[in-house]
Amino acid sequence: MDFFKVESVDRAREIILNEFSDLELSIEEVSIDESLGRTLGEDLISLENVPDFNRSTVDGYAIVAEDSYGATDSVPSLLTIKGEVRMGEEAAMEINSGYTVYVPTGAMVPKGATAVGMIENTEKMSDDTLLLHKPLGKGENLILRGEDTKKGDVVLKRGTLMTAQAIGVMASLGISKVKVFKKPRVYIISTGDEVIEIDKNPSMGEIRDINSYALAALIKNLGGDVSGRIIIGDNYDELLNGVKHGLECADIVLLSGGSSVGTRDYTHKVIDALGGKGVLVHGLAIKPGKPTIIGDGNGKLVAGLPGHPVSSVVVFKALIQPYMLALLNRDDIMPQVRAVVTHNFPSSPGKETYYMVSVGKNDSGYTATPSFGKSGMISLMTKSQGYIVIGEHEEGINKGEERDVYLI
Amino acid sequence: MDFFKVESVDRAREIILNEFSDLELSIEEVSIDESLGRTLGEDLISLENVPDFNRSTVDGYAIVAEDSYGATDSVPSLLTIKGEVRMGEEAAMEINSGYTVYVPTGAMVPKGATAVGMIENTEKMSDDTLLLHKPLGKGENLILRGEDTKKGDVVLKRGTLMTAQAIGVMASLGISKVKVFKKPRVYIISTGDEVIEIDKNPSMGEIRDINSYALAALIKNLGGDVSGRIIIGDNYDELLNGVKHGLECADIVLLSGGSSVGTRDYTHKVIDALGGKGVLVHGLAIKPGKPTIIGDGNGKLVAGLPGHPVSSVVVFKALIQPYMLALLNRDDIMPQVRAVVTHNFPSSPGKETYYMVSVGKNDSGYTATPSFGKSGMISLMTKSQGYIVIGEHEEGINKGEERDVYLI
Repeated sequence: MDFFKVESVDRAREIILNEFSDLELSIEEVSIDESLGRTLGEDLISLENVPDFNRSTVDGYAIVAEDSYGATDSVPSLLTIKGEVRMGEEAAMEINSGYTVYVPTGAMVPKGATAVGMIENTEKMSDDTLLLHKPLGKGENLILRGEDTKKGDVVLKRGTLMTAQAIGVMASLGISKVKVFKKPRVYIISTGDEVIEIDKNPSMGEIRDINSYALAALIKNLGGDVSGRIIIGDNYDELLNGVKHGLECADIVLLSGGSSVGTRDYTHKVIDALGGKGVLVHGLAIKPGKPTIIGDGNGKLVAGLPGHPVSSVVVFKALIQPYMLALLNRDDIMPQVRAVVTHNFPSSPGKETYYMVSVGKNDSGYTATPSFGKSGMISLMTKSQGYIVIGEHEEGINKGEERDVYLI
Repeated sequence: MDFFKVESVDRAREIILNEFSDLELSIEEVSIDESLGRTLGEDLISLENVPDFNRSTVDGYAIVAEDSYGATDSVPSLLTIKGEVRMGEEAAMEINSGYTVYVPTGAMVPKGATAVGMIENTEKMSDDTLLLHKPLGKGENLILRGEDTKKGDVVLKRGTLMTAQAIGVMASLGISKVKVFKKPRVYIISTGDEVIEIDKNPSMGEIRDINSYALAALIKNLGGDVSGRIIIGDNYDELLNGVKHGLECADIVLLSGGSSVGTRDYTHKVIDALGGKGVLVHGLAIKPGKPTIIGDGNGKLVAGLPGHPVSSVVVFKALIQPYMLALLNRDDIMPQVRAVVTHNFPSSPGKETYYMVSVGKNDSGYTATPSFGKSGMISLMTKSQGYIVIGEHEEGINKGEERDVYLI
């Protein structure tokens, strides 16, 4: 074993991005209805001007803006009414200085008009005579053709997560199909002689395959695809074949388990045997999650995550999630709440420390309480709604301080 | 039209919850693999003790705690080694005062033992003689049978959102199938003569059916199901039939559109004709989103949302989302970031005001900038990652203040 490759979390992230960012996800086309949670694989360009015509944003009278300059209640501008534009109709007439036309909200503003006076600021003297009591700036109360979006504009960038909003934008532009990145495929291997299927009853010393279920859910949440899942015991050949198969059908291979030194040895040897650059990181300056291995599967990321479920989730969040988002060109804002911590949180000098916390609410906002416990895994997982990260070089956190809690 | 039913957002939420919370979603069973994003329909009870045996949390020697009292480096306790427990094996022997047994981390602690001394604090004098240099409290370095979770304990409550974590907890308890609420079904009707399918080219005055796509995505995000979608013009009979059909196949009917007074009239009349309590709210003290109608479809919520896409999203977030979460018994923490606002945000006295904002990042954290614009809908939607809510009785927000931005 190589004990000289313990790296900081930042450095490990960097190594992963440097080594494996050549991998390009291919593109597929889906209907916008199916696009929720997917990621835009190309810049989305508007094929239309929005609006497609100069549109009034008020009920009022279209005018040449200059005609209103100096207008007041006592000295209004006098204009000749030339007619009206109906909603949904082309404005056939043109306007010159001295003339005006009535336009309802949303209707087309006639050619020549550069502002719309709100009806509240006008007074109709007769069928064809209007008094305007207020000066208008050029462009006031109308929205110009293409002012919202011009034909050819990039409306949404490659790497945009398809949200309700992005889908609404597409619908408004008449785009019903969209090119998205194919889902990053992850193959999950649970390793160790002690790991059994979850529907079996563990004998003494056996443990159910928790991690592959939790990891699969994290992967799907990010818009990834679990291309396969398998339990492999402490057997070098089987593990090597398993990883090779994973590399054939997936973009990332995650090994999880290796609570025993024996299993970690196998993982290390298997990675070295893949013919790539071998093990790049062995040991991570993170708590919990130290026994993490990062290796090269000939250009694809092979990661050995710790066996403890909470640790494997922590390392997934710290290393695998940023890589998956990078593959998707995404720059997500991580869901979080600001909370007042209710206890002191000690740090582990030289390590990035993750604390699972339960989030409460009081009159002044959210609170974060560490989910401590004697490795009581289930209580820990059920009571936590998020986690707090203390940086490698940070002191601990004192009771009463405010911190961001990342929601899980 | 009834102009006397304008309500505050809080009051409208209350009315909806009072009137329509009798509706009960039925329950269905799914595999935990399919349960991500679903909501637990019953309390989840552990069928096992976790751990299933008293387990050591360190490598060390199991003892009767009292035997260590007073032990120091100079005056250690003297104990007779009775053997060792191997990992994954039943601890057959029993321990009495004066005796000890070696147990590795995770292994079973023998009957009679009430503490485990860490190997670092012991000294082996011979094959069967051990010196212990440190006193131990009862229960120190071991986790008792059922200490994490007891058989019969409620591990996850009805209404829990199935996250990676909840799925991990189930896997660890050997639960592979789970009872979840059926997805709340929502029927969406886009109303108005001017609304056309998104793949058509709008003529003057026509508008593509944006809202039903955006609303469908919001519904799916919450774990709901869109049971149908239809565009219906300004025709009383067709609208009445559409709403009746929606009430047959869904739990909630959303009408969206009604930018024109005519369409709103139809919506009002149709709701009054359903034979229930009719229109409960007509007009909401919210900005944007005032032209909102809440009605009774014989025990089911029928809501008329505004036609403007941003307004309809705002009203969905303010009223429909809380109701859907209530149906699911969920009490979610809304994803949000704390951000420093970069501009003054005026409030609208007597109204709950929603500002769409773009979220930026600088050295000291997140910033929130209002996505203003002359109702430039597309720019507004593409530039906003969240929204800020100013309460009905609140003053505006000043530049430099910190506020929660709800992510969309």
